[in-house]
Amino acid sequence: MPTQPLKEFREFRERMNEVILNAGNLTINRFFALDGRAYEPGALGAKTKELLGLVSSLVLRCDDCITYHIVRCKEEGVTHEEFLEVFAIGLVVGGSICIPHLRRGMVRLEELSGGTG
Amino acid sequence: MPTQPLKEFREFRERMNEVILNAGNLTINRFFALDGRAYEPGALGAKTKELLGLVSSLVLRCDDCITYHIVRCKEEGVTHEEFLEVFAIGLVVGGSICIPHLRRGMVRLEELSGGTG
Amino acid sequence: MPTQPLKEFREFRERMNEVILNAGNLTINRFFALDGRAYEPGALGAKTKELLGLVSSLVLRCDDCITYHIVRCKEEGVTHEEFLEVFAIGLVVGGSICIPHLRRGMVRLEELSGGTG
Amino acid sequence: MPTQPLKEFREFRERMNEVILNAGNLTINRFFALDGRAYEPGALGAKTKELLGLVSSLVLRCDDCITYHIVRCKEEGVTHEEFLEVFAIGLVVGGSICIPHLRRGMVRLEELSGGTG
Amino acid sequence: MPTQPLKEFREFRERMNEVILNAGNLTINRFFALDGRAYEPGALGAKTKELLGLVSSLVLRCDDCITYHIVRCKEEGVTHEEFLEVFAIGLVVGGSICIPHLRRGMVRLEELSGGTG
Amino acid sequence: MPTQPLKEFREFRERMNEVILNAGNLTINRFFALDGRAYEPGALGAKTKELLGLVSSLVLRCDDCITYHIVRCKEEGVTHEEFLEVFAIGLVVGGSICIPHLRRGMVRLEELSGGTG
Repeated sequence: MPTQPLKEFREFRERMNEVILNAGNLTINRFFALDGRAYEPGALGAKTKELLGLVSSLVLRCDDCITYHIVRCKEEGVTHEEFLEVFAIGLVVGGSICIPHLRRGMVRLEELSGGTG
Repeated sequence: MPTQPLKEFREFRERMNEVILNAGNLTINRFFALDGRAYEPGALGAKTKELLGLVSSLVLRCDDCITYHIVRCKEEGVTHEEFLEVFAIGLVVGGSICIPHLRRGMVRLEELSGGTG
Repeated sequence: MPTQPLKEFREFRERMNEVILNAGNLTINRFFALDGRAYEPGALGAKTKELLGLVSSLVLRCDDCITYHIVRCKEEGVTHEEFLEVFAIGLVVGGSICIPHLRRGMVRLEELSGGTG
Repeated sequence: MPTQPLKEFREFRERMNEVILNAGNLTINRFFALDGRAYEPGALGAKTKELLGLVSSLVLRCDDCITYHIVRCKEEGVTHEEFLEVFAIGLVVGGSICIPHLRRGMVRLEELSGGTG
Repeated sequence: MPTQPLKEFREFRERMNEVILNAGNLTINRFFALDGRAYEPGALGAKTKELLGLVSSLVLRCDDCITYHIVRCKEEGVTHEEFLEVFAIGLVVGGSICIPHLRRGMVRLEELSGGTG
Repeated sequence: MPTQPLKEFREFRERMNEVILNAGNLTINRFFALDGRAYEPGALGAKTKELLGLVSSLVLRCDDCITYHIVRCKEEGVTHEEFLEVFAIGLVVGGSICIPHLRRGMVRLEELSGGTG
């Protein structure tokens, strides 16, 4: 499947999160709050937590979640080599079925590096 | 990933179902018949069965199945508040990995309500 | 794998939930609260919500979750015929890979009916 | 988790299949018939179809399904080397998360060979 | 979701595999080598192994993997009737949640047959 | 399902790994080597990599894999609070369907702490 440009993904994500949160279901809204809270620094730092989110997204094979955590990892200073080591673990744990998601994840890294990959 | 307009989804689904059923594999054809049969009203009504189909599609993270069951739920009179409660259960059971599918499901609700969400 | 008697399952579940909640991680504790909250009656009644929890557990193939929701469904007055219709939908959606869980679910129904199934 | 002896597995499977089929849900009964039918020889032979059932069970990580298809594969004359090649594909596709199921599958091969593995 | 034309899929796959292999992570590179190796003929022939890859991809619901193995199966001489029998097993094992992937798989068969399906 | 004592798990794991590696399938043996290699310290340290293995095991819901990585994490000095933060992320990402695995994971932590939890 073709990869949606990062900018489009972000706009869609923001618009729909707003639609969801405005819908007024308390359980959903609390879940979203909890989802944010889980990645706040604690005994483990924000960077480590984002790496955990990224590898989980890869083995569960969710492109949008992979994109989101790649962006956040980048903000936390994750290097290209570290990204690859996370991908390697996800690949070994989750198998070749994860490869298409790895390909699209690498496109995100390219986009975030200004196309130099 | 971008969401396919509902009309396109329906045309593609209908055309390919026809291709599949005309291919002449008896097991596949019986499976499709069984798939229809499972949602017919019995001890549980059609509405409840469609809600079961919807929540299953959400936790198994299949956009096309979510779209199909949202359309059917709407036909059975499921209200906006009821949709949200099904989504809330799917989200709690299946986790944040379901959020991208929830976003695309909300787009379907918008489409079916003429864009007013 | 052999099925654990219902009484043992309940004791283990209660003891470990206590261990988890006493461990003092706020995100986990809030998640547990949210998990309870999602099944409280709202636009949809408690019975319908438990059916949603049951079918989700079946298609995601979690024996302990199936057991828990069968017990709760029974408390909400779900009949034998209704259980079977939920199982039928789960089976069609999730496929034959769910059959071993269906077998163990039927053992639970037997246990809850005093062995008469 | 400990592996249930093959004899126990078979007795449990047979008893519960009977309970399920006697429960009288037509969708479930037709699904079971279809499940049998899918593996009958056609354009592909019974052996190839059982190999397909086995690898599917491994990547979906269902011990009971793996056991069932190992027994059936053995009946269709699958050799030790062929079993290993199916496991290798399952492992590469499904990842290291399948290894515990591979271990228990190897126990089944040992049981079926009289313990000589 | 719309299906990407086969030509585009192939170009994207090739380009990104090159990006991944050039990134220089030894674990990832060895995994890719192992992924190729698993399908080489051994006790089981290349055709049977590709059928195993295809059914695994279907039950795990990965469109790109399904596309790849359909192409490879076609190269190994898999007939239309044999494809349908693999799909039938995948459908019964994996359930109706696989139907959207079956639809898109049928599009690939159409493409590879010059549109005559 | 009842939890197997840690000592039994270890003995079974070691014995079956030996059986598998002695079976002589080169793809499987290389996969096992790669599985070990993926967790060796590189740009990311061994502790971080084990945390990645643990959260992947939790969201993919594999008790044996959770047990293995809890033991390894403990060896790498992961604290009780850090374990809980990994579990919290796994729970939020993977949903309530992971709770039974979390319960059994907590039993492992109890066992490794001499029962004091």
